[in-house]
Amino acid sequence: MTIYKAPLADFSFLFDRVLRLDALSNVPGFAEASGDTRGAILEEAGKLSEGVLLPLNESGDREGCRYDAKTHSVTTPKGFKEAYRQFTEGGWSGLASDPDYGGQGLPAVLALAVNEMVVATNWSFAMYPGLSHGAYSAIHTHGSEEQKATYLPKLVAGEWSGTMNLTEPQCGTDLGLIRTKAEPQKDGSYRITGTKIWISGGEQDLTANAIHLVLARISGAPEGIKGISLFIVPKFLVNADGTLGARNGVFCGGLEEKMGIHANATCVMNYEGATGYLIGEPHKGMRAMFTMMNEARLGVGLQGLAISEIAYQNAVAFARERLQGRSLTGPKNEGGPADPIIVHPDVRRMLMDVRAFNEGARALLLWTGLWGDLEYRSSDAKTREKGGDYMALLTPVLKAYFTDQGFQSAVTCQQVLGGSGFTKHFPIEQFVRDARIGMIYEGANGIQALDLVGRKLAQNGGRALFAFLADAGEVADALVARPEFKAYGDRLHETRKFLEDATKWLMENALANPDHAGASSYDYLYLTAYVALGLVWGRMVLAARKALDEGAGEKAFFEAKLVTARHFFERVLPAAQVHAVRAKAGADGLMALAAEAF
Amino acid sequence: MTIYKAPLADFSFLFDRVLRLDALSNVPGFAEASGDTRGAILEEAGKLSEGVLLPLNESGDREGCRYDAKTHSVTTPKGFKEAYRQFTEGGWSGLASDPDYGGQGLPAVLALAVNEMVVATNWSFAMYPGLSHGAYSAIHTHGSEEQKATYLPKLVAGEWSGTMNLTEPQCGTDLGLIRTKAEPQKDGSYRITGTKIWISGGEQDLTANAIHLVLARISGAPEGIKGISLFIVPKFLVNADGTLGARNGVFCGGLEEKMGIHANATCVMNYEGATGYLIGEPHKGMRAMFTMMNEARLGVGLQGLAISEIAYQNAVAFARERLQGRSLTGPKNEGGPADPIIVHPDVRRMLMDVRAFNEGARALLLWTGLWGDLEYRSSDAKTREKGGDYMALLTPVLKAYFTDQGFQSAVTCQQVLGGSGFTKHFPIEQFVRDARIGMIYEGANGIQALDLVGRKLAQNGGRALFAFLADAGEVADALVARPEFKAYGDRLHETRKFLEDATKWLMENALANPDHAGASSYDYLYLTAYVALGLVWGRMVLAARKALDEGAGEKAFFEAKLVTARHFFERVLPAAQVHAVRAKAGADGLMALAAEAF
Repeated sequence: MTIYKAPLADFSFLFDRVLRLDALSNVPGFAEASGDTRGAILEEAGKLSEGVLLPLNESGDREGCRYDAKTHSVTTPKGFKEAYRQFTEGGWSGLASDPDYGGQGLPAVLALAVNEMVVATNWSFAMYPGLSHGAYSAIHTHGSEEQKATYLPKLVAGEWSGTMNLTEPQCGTDLGLIRTKAEPQKDGSYRITGTKIWISGGEQDLTANAIHLVLARISGAPEGIKGISLFIVPKFLVNADGTLGARNGVFCGGLEEKMGIHANATCVMNYEGATGYLIGEPHKGMRAMFTMMNEARLGVGLQGLAISEIAYQNAVAFARERLQGRSLTGPKNEGGPADPIIVHPDVRRMLMDVRAFNEGARALLLWTGLWGDLEYRSSDAKTREKGGDYMALLTPVLKAYFTDQGFQSAVTCQQVLGGSGFTKHFPIEQFVRDARIGMIYEGANGIQALDLVGRKLAQNGGRALFAFLADAGEVADALVARPEFKAYGDRLHETRKFLEDATKWLMENALANPDHAGASSYDYLYLTAYVALGLVWGRMVLAARKALDEGAGEKAFFEAKLVTARHFFERVLPAAQVHAVRAKAGADGLMALAAEAF
Repeated sequence: MTIYKAPLADFSFLFDRVLRLDALSNVPGFAEASGDTRGAILEEAGKLSEGVLLPLNESGDREGCRYDAKTHSVTTPKGFKEAYRQFTEGGWSGLASDPDYGGQGLPAVLALAVNEMVVATNWSFAMYPGLSHGAYSAIHTHGSEEQKATYLPKLVAGEWSGTMNLTEPQCGTDLGLIRTKAEPQKDGSYRITGTKIWISGGEQDLTANAIHLVLARISGAPEGIKGISLFIVPKFLVNADGTLGARNGVFCGGLEEKMGIHANATCVMNYEGATGYLIGEPHKGMRAMFTMMNEARLGVGLQGLAISEIAYQNAVAFARERLQGRSLTGPKNEGGPADPIIVHPDVRRMLMDVRAFNEGARALLLWTGLWGDLEYRSSDAKTREKGGDYMALLTPVLKAYFTDQGFQSAVTCQQVLGGSGFTKHFPIEQFVRDARIGMIYEGANGIQALDLVGRKLAQNGGRALFAFLADAGEVADALVARPEFKAYGDRLHETRKFLEDATKWLMENALANPDHAGASSYDYLYLTAYVALGLVWGRMVLAARKALDEGAGEKAFFEAKLVTARHFFERVLPAAQVHAVRAKAGADGLMALAAEAF
């Protein structure tokens, strides 16, 4: 029996008291997402997640997707089709999409909260509409007016799905090695030929059509990454009147057998002279693809949080019920044969670690997501700039840190269950298997670290990082100013200093030897994550204190928030120290062995 | 394709130059394990592992064990029976067993090296003889002469297997809750009735008989842990002449579905008035069981190392072959389309982390195992005492730290493979699933930490820990004395000081509030592990330096050892800092939330 209860109180706290969305009602879309509406939307999304998606999570894992080689078709697990129908009919696929194409135009930050619940209760399911939204964004940003009119309404409505086709057998991270060919045709379209692998939702039985976004190389294009273009390849061609036309030459060639996310079809996709349409300019496919990828990367970070939350809830339920041993300070359940294991400090250490991650990650995700909204929606140019800066800086950080920790949370929660956690009687072993992919796809986490250090950091002379350090410093000052939180503020200042020092070290060393940047990158990303978490935890501490001072209801909630904050500042944030050491350790030791000597 | 090459050079280095076994030829059994013999034994074990066990690892995972409800029988995967025959015919099951019962009497430390290879290549297989050896030890230590004569020769030869039956549905960690009943019979035997769960190898088709060691409560016994006795319950009763007699009333009731180790049968065992024979005294079953458990715990720690080694080898092979991107310092494979990913510092960071663990853990395991031999075999009372002290102190540390890190290694190596690592085309996802159980069984790792802090630490006034701190200090001094290793010695001194401080903190706080001990225990265990690893790494550094100074052959090996040592001291050991902070953070924050508030 899997437990899940939508974390609605935490969403309210963050939206109402930390991010204070109601003060942003002048930003387009935010007035439509006022307190009551937000509450109602999140409650409905919670019901859908708890009532429709959760019951299919385990059965989906056991059954998996089935491939029929004769028809090249894929059948999703029992119940997925009906659940997808309910999902789209409820309007969930177009929550934050452009109203011009049938979307509801609500803030993206609200969609993040909704998606946390959807992913938590059914990661595999959530990927189908998730990737469609990525395709929507790429076409919305880079497509022609005609392309937008043809594809976006269907994607927004969820009638058609979208997929991302990047990887080929010889190239994952290094997209410059792509071989899929695009031959220009007289009518302006292209003939696409090649094989793509690991295509999530490449084929399924949920939607009437699938819009594949495909990276390919136009004949005669420059070598490497500068010769890659992006194409729209619909499964069924679309007639001028919008109805479905001929079956296009793209077929699923098989499904990947994998460790987890069994209910999501991971497809080999064969392009056999399929008709494709260029999006944007020739050879500029990577730019368009990055629009999809950045959005997808934040979405993957979200997956880490989501799995951690549901793992936590199930571990807590177990720890409250399982009777083993007695509290070291005397029986707490005298009438029973033993105490519930939640009395043991070491069990609480595990639960509190996960809890502190969940609450901090949720705050950081929504804080970042709000900057994403402001980037596009704010009327103030400076705010838009800062929004873009923060989204660029923090997306790789959230992707990597959240998926690492989300997986770790699932493992920790599995540990709380002891032997039960290793069996299939409980859902957590599936959470561990599902969570593992988050660290890998949409750019393995090491790639995120290189993106941060090699690209994001230096943009605009480090403008984003310096603003971020200043913001963190302000929060630390505010904590230090209150005696009860002074130790937290000191710790945050210390962590901020680690990041500053590591940045200085990079500036002084990476130019002379670029391997130093690579050697430092992962720990640098972790330092950034710790500062970011410290920042949002500081803001939560101050907001919770304020609520208590004002005598707000839900006193127990705010008090619990302060307990979790204490755990974060006392036991989690000190881990930044070791990353500070490693971020400056350099490449020499790592590069000393010859490849043959490993 | 799974790769494995027995790490024979590292075994030689450790046995010959670090532990210097040849200086111990006056200890019984050691003269028979001189350099050449050792080499030959390890080479043969390597061949068995590479040639017989490895090819069955993946197929065993896919096929799993099958249960037939009609006959209560279990079929192990294809090839296991034949492999088991080769294993026992080669004499591997009795390598370090008592020659009085057909064993070879070789040092246990040698058997550890053999077992590393056996487990690495087939974890599930290795558990069958592994548990038999646990049963051997319990009977050897606590059984009557008659029991020894009846059961030991068959266990040593591997003709019969042994199993451990502790857990029941209502009790895992808390064995005081055991309900299985033992009713005394007129002939001195007992009728055993009850249900045991999670019994590894409880039923299988490899051996002619199975000797179940079962914890049960004699009618009228005191409540709780003080009323538990240990029984021998053979699957087939044994006639006076040693032949097999009647089928006993113990039956497998089903197999557990689980995340990994699919080729090892995890059984529900139903005792239906089965005939059992008391081992040792009534109500003293826990003592006898601890003999088995301590041995098993060291064996589980070994599993963490073993899986890490094979994961490493496969990740290295992938990283050498997979071409993606270019080195940040310019192409290293100019003729090819891209460089192998082993040129990237962040890939090396992952590989070096795992490598440093493997080499350190192997050294620490064998160092500890040697103390185990000396505990039983040394002619010097002081040495026997110290051997016992170190085995007691370090067994929980190795069990917990090695299995945590072994799992982490498998995850890290999976990360090196990127998307490939998540698919079943490569073996690493299986390693991750298999490795996960190590952190749970034979006492979850949190229990190991409590064993260390609550039991082992205080024994004999902390004698073991003080000797250990002194030994580590000596190694640190020796490092400091050599300018090239001074930084390593300083770091080890610092880590040693962390452990000393944490010990002092425990002495000052845990008495007033025992929850402080629980809150500190896990990080305290990690501090102990870091000091222990620092100690053996220090010894390896000095031994490698000496070998180089002496101009020994295999120069590249010793140089590589120093590179890995550098990684350990520069990038791994600094992690002790955060454990030093947490070990003194206390219980107040952890215990602040009411159970309902989680």
